[in-house]
Order: sequence, then structure tokens, then C-alpha cells
Amino acid sequence: MSKKIVIVGGVAGGASTAARLRRLDEEADIIMFEKGEYISFANCGLPYYIGGVISEREQLLLQTVEEMSHKFKIDIRILSEVIAIDREQKQLTIKNLKTDEIYCEKYDKLVLSPGAKPTVPPIKGLSECKQLFTLRNIPDTDRIKAYIDSEKPQKAVVIGGGFIGLEMVENLKHQKLEVTLIEATPQVMAPLDIEMASIIHEHLLDQGINLILNQSVEAFEQEGHQVVLSSGEVIATDMIIMAIGVTPETTIAKAVGLEVTEKGSIIVDEYMRTSDESIYALGDAVSIKDFVSGEKMMIPLAWPANRQGRVVADHICGRASHYKGTLGSAVAKVFDYTVATTGNNEKMLKRLGRSYEVVHIHPNAHASYYPGAFPIAFKMLFDPKTGEILGAQGVGMEGVEKRIDVLAVAIKGGLKVIDLQDIEPCYAPPYNSAKDPVNMLGYYAANLIEGLVENTQWYEVDSLVSQGAFILDVREPFELVTGVIPKSVNIPLSSLRQRISELPKEKDIYVTCQIGQRGYVACRLLMALGYSCKNIDGGMKTYLAVQK
Amino acid sequence: MSKKIVIVGGVAGGASTAARLRRLDEEADIIMFEKGEYISFANCGLPYYIGGVISEREQLLLQTVEEMSHKFKIDIRILSEVIAIDREQKQLTIKNLKTDEIYCEKYDKLVLSPGAKPTVPPIKGLSECKQLFTLRNIPDTDRIKAYIDSEKPQKAVVIGGGFIGLEMVENLKHQKLEVTLIEATPQVMAPLDIEMASIIHEHLLDQGINLILNQSVEAFEQEGHQVVLSSGEVIATDMIIMAIGVTPETTIAKAVGLEVTEKGSIIVDEYMRTSDESIYALGDAVSIKDFVSGEKMMIPLAWPANRQGRVVADHICGRASHYKGTLGSAVAKVFDYTVATTGNNEKMLKRLGRSYEVVHIHPNAHASYYPGAFPIAFKMLFDPKTGEILGAQGVGMEGVEKRIDVLAVAIKGGLKVIDLQDIEPCYAPPYNSAKDPVNMLGYYAANLIEGLVENTQWYEVDSLVSQGAFILDVREPFELVTGVIPKSVNIPLSSLRQRISELPKEKDIYVTCQIGQRGYVACRLLMALGYSCKNIDGGMKTYLAVQK
Ligand SMILES: Cc1cc2nc3c(=O)[nH]c(=O)nc-3n(C[C@H](O)[C@H](O)[C@H](O)COP(=O)(O)OP(=O)(O)OC[C@H]3O[C@@H](n4cnc5c(N)ncnc54)[C@H](O)[C@@H]3O)c2cc1C
Ligand SMILES: Cc1cc2nc3c(=O)[nH]c(=O)nc-3n(C[C@H](O)[C@H](O)[C@H](O)COP(=O)(O)OP(=O)(O)OC[C@H]3O[C@@H](n4cnc5c(N)ncnc54)[C@H](O)[C@@H]3O)c2cc1C
Ligand SMILES: CC(C)(COP(=O)(O)OP(=O)(O)OC[C@H]1O[C@@H](n2cnc3c(N)ncnc32)[C@H](O)[C@@H]1OP(=O)(O)O)[C@@H](O)C(=O)NCCC(=O)NCCS
Ligand SMILES: CC(C)(COP(=O)(O)OP(=O)(O)OC[C@H]1O[C@@H](n2cnc3c(N)ncnc32)[C@H](O)[C@@H]1OP(=O)(O)O)[C@@H](O)C(=O)NCCC(=O)NCCS
Repeated sequence: MSKKIVIVGGVAGGASTAARLRRLDEEADIIMFEKGEYISFANCGLPYYIGGVISEREQLLLQTVEEMSHKFKIDIRILSEVIAIDREQKQLTIKNLKTDEIYCEKYDKLVLSPGAKPTVPPIKGLSECKQLFTLRNIPDTDRIKAYIDSEKPQKAVVIGGGFIGLEMVENLKHQKLEVTLIEATPQVMAPLDIEMASIIHEHLLDQGINLILNQSVEAFEQEGHQVVLSSGEVIATDMIIMAIGVTPETTIAKAVGLEVTEKGSIIVDEYMRTSDESIYALGDAVSIKDFVSGEKMMIPLAWPANRQGRVVADHICGRASHYKGTLGSAVAKVFDYTVATTGNNEKMLKRLGRSYEVVHIHPNAHASYYPGAFPIAFKMLFDPKTGEILGAQGVGMEGVEKRIDVLAVAIKGGLKVIDLQDIEPCYAPPYNSAKDPVNMLGYYAANLIEGLVENTQWYEVDSLVSQGAFILDVREPFELVTGVIPKSVNIPLSSLRQRISELPKEKDIYVTCQIGQRGYVACRLLMALGYSCKNIDGGMKTYLAVQK
Repeated sequence: MSKKIVIVGGVAGGASTAARLRRLDEEADIIMFEKGEYISFANCGLPYYIGGVISEREQLLLQTVEEMSHKFKIDIRILSEVIAIDREQKQLTIKNLKTDEIYCEKYDKLVLSPGAKPTVPPIKGLSECKQLFTLRNIPDTDRIKAYIDSEKPQKAVVIGGGFIGLEMVENLKHQKLEVTLIEATPQVMAPLDIEMASIIHEHLLDQGINLILNQSVEAFEQEGHQVVLSSGEVIATDMIIMAIGVTPETTIAKAVGLEVTEKGSIIVDEYMRTSDESIYALGDAVSIKDFVSGEKMMIPLAWPANRQGRVVADHICGRASHYKGTLGSAVAKVFDYTVATTGNNEKMLKRLGRSYEVVHIHPNAHASYYPGAFPIAFKMLFDPKTGEILGAQGVGMEGVEKRIDVLAVAIKGGLKVIDLQDIEPCYAPPYNSAKDPVNMLGYYAANLIEGLVENTQWYEVDSLVSQGAFILDVREPFELVTGVIPKSVNIPLSSLRQRISELPKEKDIYVTCQIGQRGYVACRLLMALGYSCKNIDGGMKTYLAVQK
């Protein structure tokens, strides 16, 4: 007899599971329930449709119910909310949202891909707001778009500086609104560390965004026309986008006793099975192994949902397939910048008490002599003992996510920092340099591991200064206009050998330059001559990023 | 006592070796001989300076003699040709090309990075040509640029469709010349297979290039104003660029009995040592292990030269470092297209008699709904038994080399095709799709390995047709305008289940669609219903590429 597989949720995870299931099993009964009107839509494209970058609404609908049901012989039921699960009877209760009819449906295997909904905290005055929006699906998008088109708001407040918040900032700006971004922590883009996020802060200011960090929203007043901050400051606005994060939509899963985390994510094993063998769960609703740390985490991104859909289908059909964990590789376009990350950041490693070493480099996106070579700030974290790559971040204009992708492969493939030296990317001047930034990261990390140089981090500099440390700046004098470390001594690398006697033999020397590279070369020279020295990682560029 | 290290060649390999050597050993005597006037210049940028894309000549000079000697305390001698090696005495004979003075210099370790020079075959009439150029260095560039500026040529012939030839074609076109490209083989860009190169052929034609394939140059007439082809055709021209390949510059190495290949490349081990323990060689002049096949090959690219330079310096200084072999990852910009390759191509695998399987896919560079999503043609070769990735090629507009880089990491990291499924690249609509093309390659290859589908290649189709095979085209009728396979039967995938009775049970069914994806879905359905079928890999797009 054919299996009956019932899927809850008809978008990234659900539709991926259904399609693969059908390719593996022509006989299975497949039913897909979706409480919304649309399946298989482009969640990730929604902000761009609001901004007018994507011009046609239909482009957001990747598969219609009609198309998908024909192509894959799937019983797709939209406007159908699954409101309860009966694990004993292996049966669901469904509410038809059009007719209000309630009925049951049996399953052999149940697949939960209900996703996560925008988090909306109980802020004072929230329920009176007439123009406060969240963004998850097509109706949300239609609402925001209609409001902009008909009400012609001039000012917008976006609450939350995560990637959806930032995409909305950019797209509202495209629509010519004055935008204020409010973020409760000291930085936007939580997956970045602060010195990397600072580059984006500056860019947001350059783009005319009113960026407010370290402030939370205390209340909404005047039906949402005023936003009151924790500082007491009041921001006037014509509309509000709430984008502070997402909450797994797991009410029915919790109600029926499936194991969930404190935050309500469904706990699954590597085959995406829940605590009930007949029930699988995937996507934004689950807590899954972080590939680097091994911790269970909620990582609400589209790649995992798509990948997990295939794993679920494979496992249901008895195929050997499992989910290896999530790196959280992510990228966002923030106006002219690209921000990309993979693996763990420094904040996380600190929290986990993991031993790590950091490198910052600032290579050009491609050969410096070919037009348009814009520098990228890269940060890589690795374990100095095992050589394991723990995470990487990049901020720049082009070629950013390309290198983060390469590092993501390296991490998942179990390559060590030392192996990055032998990675052989394609090179021609419009695309790269003969040594790829990833090679540089490998070289630099190897130098640290092998003791060819020692590093100091940007956040240690100020206390070094106040302790009266000797700071040597090896840039050429004309470069000093970009800023200097207080009390640093300038001896250009080109004349360091001649002027070596100006350096103290008894003191540690902290070396800096523009990006850290000449500092390293200077350190090699100093070490050979018996000086004790450390290179300030990332040079002035990394140090000054946070100072601004 | 300090070591005396003498380097022959002051550009990619030589200068890289020198810089790393100094960082490792402040005491060593380092002498670098360069017969030209410039060291450390941007070979790869030369075509773009000719085309005016790079506007300033100085941008090509990455390090001046002055800068590099100060920064690294290196004795750099330009216009100094090493004309002989004495291995017994460990001594070189040098000719000062400015003064004609000849003198000797001893070495403890000798490093040869003399590169390769443009190959110029003895074609009839060649020596009389007044406007025939090759391109290797700054003087060559100056000559070509001066000729264009002063003589205002209208027509140019480029001989050789490798990447330097194609870059010259593009850059001469930028200078408003009418360009003819003559290539003796059936295709440009030898690292590509023919169906991939065909996409570039079409693009060259679209750009107004007079593309002549399968023809060699028999003679030059009228001092190079006429180029006579093997067909007898005569092409009138005002200038000629000869770019048919390079020949290792190894006269002095051969003269002193260092082991070389038949083609004159110096044979080295994994530490870049020649047959003489005191002599290292690297860069374009050596024959090195092809990473995939293990064969010794000459792979004249900048990444290997740079990487090998560091290995040589490390090994001289007693550090554990070795060269893992070359993948030959390469990329070229050809007008609006990007062509990238890594590893072995199908021609090479055939020649080596290696068993392999092929997949072609045509994904969009990024999410289809985000503006500018242009398809990329990817081809991947792998060993169906071991799952080893053997090579990959990509042709498209953006995001091409990004995926080839990812595959290059996968190959060097020893990942298998199956592992490509779990590669987790960064995703947001402007950059990618939730399933990266590399994931798709992994899925597709896994399906083949696991027997979920069987493939037929584009080059088998015509003989299938003539044998009267049953070819099923599952596209929608409106798509057929792009071209059909003769005698194919059209039943759209969306109605295949209903019309299944129209298919023969006793015959193999060959399925096609636009790009091979629906063909695969159709095959899964047919297989489930007991039909015997094969999918035409890459669909009509791959098949038609070569037909045009
Ligand atoms: C605006 C926006 C931009 C984004 N941009 C990116 C990006 O650039 N990159 C990236 O990686 N990710 C991005 N994401 C995240 C990505 O879309 C999600 O990670 C992914 O869609 C998760 O898939 P899922 O199947 O778990 O949930 P969803 O795709 O949200 O699908 C869940 C579906 O289940 C339905 N459902 C829930 N409960 C029930 C029920 N009880 N009965 C019936 N149906 C139910 C819901 O209506 C919903 O349609 C973005 C998300 C949003 C909202
Ligand atoms: C026009 C052009 C475009 C290119 N584009 C790319 C590209 O996009 N991507 C890529 O990967 N590669 C590219 N390359 C190839 C790349 O430049 C080479 O692979 C690389 O430079 C090889 O380094 P090398 O040190 O072996 O030789 P070279 O860099 O050529 O240096 C060798 C030097 O040795 C000197 N020399 C030789 N014999 C002697 C002697 N007896 N005494 C003293 N000096 C001597 C020569 O004068 C020469 O300057 C390009 C090359 C050219 C010419
Ligand atoms: C589109 C959707 C329905 C999934 O459908 P799908 O058929 O599994 O996915 P794709 O269209 O990506 O096709 C992938 C399949 O085609 C195969 N394939 C791709 N290109 C191929 C080619 N050229 N030849 C042969 N097979 C090919 C793959 O192997 C894979 O099949 P498999 O899983 O059986 O191995 C689902 O992902 C979805 O609804 N997505 C939209 C929502 C979403 O993802 N939102 C977040 C991002 S905006
Ligand atoms: C430039 C050239 C002289 C090499 O000099 P180099 O100093 O070895 O190379 P780079 O400038 O790339 O610097 C690399 C070094 O800086 C280190 N580095 C890079 N960024 C760093 C940073 N931010 N902080 C600390 N160290 C850094 C690397 O670790 C590496 O040092 P190592 O080899 O000791 O580990 C040589 O490659 C050359 O002449 N190139 C031009 C010719 C050429 O390559 N042509 C073909 C392509 S056009």
C-alpha cells in the first residue's frame, strides 16, 4: 500500500520536501497544507518588491498551486490551517479558512515546515498603531506596498538591524522615504562582530539613514506616529516596520508534546525526525546543530530549509541521507555594500569559551590595477591549536560572498587554515589577484600558528596606549592623515633598517601600518634583529573602523 | 655564514620567492637577476592597458626596483641576463645588457623563474612582417600601444584563441579595430570542451568579431598586410598579434643538463627542486603535477607561480612546505561573458582513458525573480565509481568563477560529488538561489550515481535520431520555437501522466526539455511506471549550443 505523507507548510521547506518526495515515490499520497493563499513564494524577494527593484508581483510566485499539483501530483490545500495533531491516531485537524469547515486527515508520516513568524513584543501602544507592519508573506507585502502607494508616507522607522530590517531600510529608501533604523544592541547585523558592523554603520550614515544604536523602543504614541526610545527621544514617523527577529510557529507541535527548546524550536535529529518517529520537522521551526560549535541553534535561513526538505524526503523513502548541520552562511546587500558571514563569530566563540585566534585583512576585490578594485574587510576566526576554521566575515563591494563561500566549503569540508594556502581559485585581473584573499588568510594564519609573527587586536590598542606601550607606525608620512594611534612613533618600513637604533630593545614594540601587511613585514625584520614585537592585526583600518 | 640565494627572473615567481625569503631570513644574501628593464609587473594587465581599460602605465608596475630593494633588502639587477649556469662551481655567468659586460656570480641556492615566451612558429613571410606583435612584457606592450596610437590601424588579426588571444581581441575592439580571430582547432579556449566553447563562439560573432576556426596560418604576405590561411583564404590586416601559446624559456637550464620534458619544461619535485639539489625552478618554466590526473604538465598561470614562490622560499629556509599540484583554475572575461574552468576537461579525460560521467546544468546566476538573473552553463566531470570531482567549466555573465572557485576548493579538499550537496554558500536574492548551482551539481550527480536517472550526452543525440530512437520533448508547446530535435514527440511534463499511453513500452525513451531538469522529473515518472528511459543531459540548451 502506498504511504500517506502529510506536509504542513507550503513554502521553502514544505514545497521542497513535496517535490523530492514525488520524484522518489510516484505512488505516495502527498498532501500539503498551507494556511496562506500562496505556496512556494519568494520570501526573500519581498523587500525588493516593496522597493520596486522587483517590478512584477507574479515574479514572487515561484510555483502556483495549479502548476505544482500537476507537475508533481500533489494534493495542495491552501487557506487550510492545521490546528491540531493527534499522535496516537496519526491524524490532523484542519480548519478551512475560507469556509471555516473543520475536518481531519490521517497520515503515515507527518512533515512540519511551518516556519517562523515575525516577533512582536508587547510594547506599550502597539495595538493602537495603524501603520505598523511586519513582513513575512505576500499579504504582508501587499499591505506595505498598498500603504506606501496610497498614503505616500514620508518617514519610516525600521525597528531591528538584522538582514530583513536592513533590506527594508534600503528598499524604503528606494521609495524615497526618510528612514530611521532603531537597533537595541550596539550594532546592526548580529552575525558580524562590532568592528565589521562598524563599516556598515558608516555606510548607512553615508546613505542618509538615521541610525540609532543602543536604544530600544519603549512605547508607541499617537497611533504609531511617534516612537519613544529608551533614551526618552521621540521619533516622528509615518510608518513602522517591526523586524526584530522571528519566533518559530510551533504552537501545534508544542501542544502535542513534541520536544522543543526553551524558545519553542522543535528539536530534531540528523534525519530531521522529531521526538515522534512518524513526525519530521524542518526549516525555521527547528533547532538544529550548528556545524562549527555543535550547539543546537535556530538558524532561520532558506538554504537549510531547502536542504532539509531533500533530507526529509530521502529519509522517508528509506534513502541514506542526513543533515550535517548549519554554518549559517548568509549574505546581504546593504546599499552599495555586500556583507557576508559563515560559521561562528567572535562574540559566540567568547560565549562558548572556545580558544580562537583572529586575523583581519583588507585585500582588494580584484587586481589593484584593474578598474574598480575596492577593498574588502575580511575577518577569519580559527583554532590556533587544531587549525580548524571557525568562522569568517566579509564587508565590501564586490567579491565578498565569493570568498565567504569558499571559506564555507573549506569549513564544511574539514579543511584547516593551513589548507587555505593551496586553494586555487580562478585568477584574471577583473576577478581576483594572483593570491586570492583566501590564500592570504591561509598564509597569515599559518604565520601566526608557526610563530612567525604575533598579533594584537584592535580592542587592545587603547589600553596599550594608556599603559605607555611603544607603538611603531611603519607607514609613509603622507599616509598618516587617515588617523594615527596616540603617541605612536612613525618610521616608514622603507627606512626601518637604517633607523633601527631609534627603537627600544627592552620594550615590547607594537607595530601598525595601514592594513597590517607592512606591519607584519616590519615584525619579521624586528624579530630577526632580536626585538620583541607584535603586529596590530588589520592595521589602522581595523582599528579606526570602530573609532569613527 | 649567511646563505647566498640567486634568483633568475624578477616577476611573478622570482619576486614572490625573494619577498618571502627575506621575511624568513634577514641575513641571507639575495640577488635577483632580470634581463628586462622591469621587475614585478602586471603581466596579466597588459592587454587591458592596450585596450585603454587600465589608463595609467604606472599601474602595471607593482613594485619598482627602488621600492622592492629597500623594503626587502634585495640586490636587484635589471637588464642583466643570466647566460650560463655552472653547476660544479655553483656559479652563474651574467651579461649586463646595458654595458655588455659579462661577469660571474656564485650561489648557494639558485632559483630559476625565467617564465615562458610567446611561441612563434616559422611561418613563411614572418620575418618580413613589420606589424606582427607578441605580448609578454612592458616593452611588448609599449610597442603595440605605440603602433596603434601612431599608425591608427583599422584591422587586426589575432592568431590563437587562448585567453591572451581573446583578451587581445576584446581590447583591440575597445580600440575600435575590426578584429579577425584565427584559431587552428575547432574551438577557442582549449580548457573548455566544445559545447561550452560554442557559447563563446556565438558571443564573439555577436560582438562583430570575424571568427575563423579550424584554419591555420600558412603564410604572411605583403610584409604582414595579408594573412594566408590553410583554406587559401587571404585576410587583409593592418596588424597581427601572435598568441598561440608559450614556450618555456629554459635554454640555460637545458644547456647545463637539468632534466626537462620533451617540450623543454624543467622537471621539479614537490619542493620545486630540479634534478640538481641546489637548483629550484618554478612558474611557467616548469612541468608540475596536474592535481587531478597526476600527470606532469606545463600550466602557465600566475597563481602557481606565486604559490610556488612561497614554497621555494620555505624549502630553502628549511620549512615544511610543499606544492600540492595545479588544478589550472582559470577565468577570462570575453566581452560580456565570463569563462572559468578548473581541473580536467572531457577531452583530457578521454585522452587519459579515465572513466568519467558528465553533467550539464543551466541555473541562473542568482534568484530568477531578482533583476539581472542571467543563466550560466555549467559542466562538471566526475568519477561515477569513486565520486571524485574531476573538473568543471562555466560560461555566463556573473557568478561564474564564484562557483568554479567553490568547486576548485572541493577538488583540492578531496570532497566528493556527494559532498557538494552539503556545501552551504551564502544566499540572498541578488547573489544566489537557495540551492546554489554547486548544490544542484551535487544533487544531479548523486542521482546519477544512485541510479535515479540515466543520462545521454548531446553528442549522442544525432545518431539516436538517425537510428529512429523515440525522443520525448516534455517542454510546453510555446517553448519549441527555440529549436527541436528532429522527429521528437512533444508531450508537456504537466500532462505526461494523462498522456502516458502515447509512449512506447518496448522502446528506450530519450527525454529532453529546455535545460534537462524537467527531463529528469519526467524520467523519474517514467521509471516509476516501468518505462526504460534516459535524460538528455543539459536539455536543448546544451544540444543546440553546438548545432548553431
Ligand atoms: C522578508 C524575508 C526575507 C528573507 N530573506 C532571506 C535571505 O535573503 N536569505 C535567506 O537565507 N533567508 C531569507 N529569509 C528566510 C527564509 O525565507 C526562510 O528561512 C525560509 O522560508 C524558511 O522555510 P520554512 O519552510 O521553514 O518556512 P516558510 O517558508 O515561512 O514556510 C512556512 C509556511 O507554513 C505555513 N504554516 C505555518 N503554520 C501552519 C499551519 N499550522 N497550517 C498550515 N500552514 C502553516 C505558513 O503560512 C508558511 O507559509 C527571508 C525571510 C523573509 C520573511
Ligand atoms: C599578456 C598576459 C596575460 C596573462 N594573464 C593571465 C591571467 O589573467 N591569469 C593568469 O593566471 N595568468 C596570466 N598570465 C600568465 C602569468 O603572467 C604567468 O603565468 C606568470 O607571470 C609566470 O610567472 P614566472 O615567474 O614563471 O614568469 P614571468 O612572470 O614571465 O617572469 C619571468 C621573468 O624572467 C626573466 N628572464 C627569463 N630568462 C632570464 C634570464 N636568463 N636571465 C634573467 N632574466 C630572465 C624574463 O625577462 C621575465 O621577466 C598572463 C601572461 C601574459 C603574458
Ligand atoms: C521550488 C520548490 C518547489 C522546490 O522544487 P524542486 O523541484 O525540489 O527544486 P528545484 O526546482 O530547485 O530543482 C531541484 C531538482 O532538480 C534537479 N536538477 C536541477 N537542474 C537539473 C538539470 N539541469 N538536469 C537534471 N536535474 C536537474 C536537482 O537534482 C533536484 O532534484 P533532486 O532533489 O531530485 O535531486 C521549493 O524549493 C520552493 O517552493 N521554493 C520557493 C520558496 C523558497 O525556497 N523560499 C526561500 C527562498 S526565496
Ligand atoms: C608582489 C610580489 C613582489 C610578492 O610580494 P609578497 O610580499 O610576497 O606578496 P604580497 O604583497 O601578496 O604579500 C603577501 C604576504 O603578506 C602577508 N599578508 C597579507 N596581508 C596581510 C595582513 N593584512 N596582515 C599581515 N600579513 C599579511 C601574507 O601572509 C604574505 O606573507 P608570507 O608569504 O610571509 O606569509 C610578487 O608577487 C610580484 O612581483 N607580483 C607581481 C607579478 C605577478 O604576480 N604577475 C602575475 C599576476 S599579474
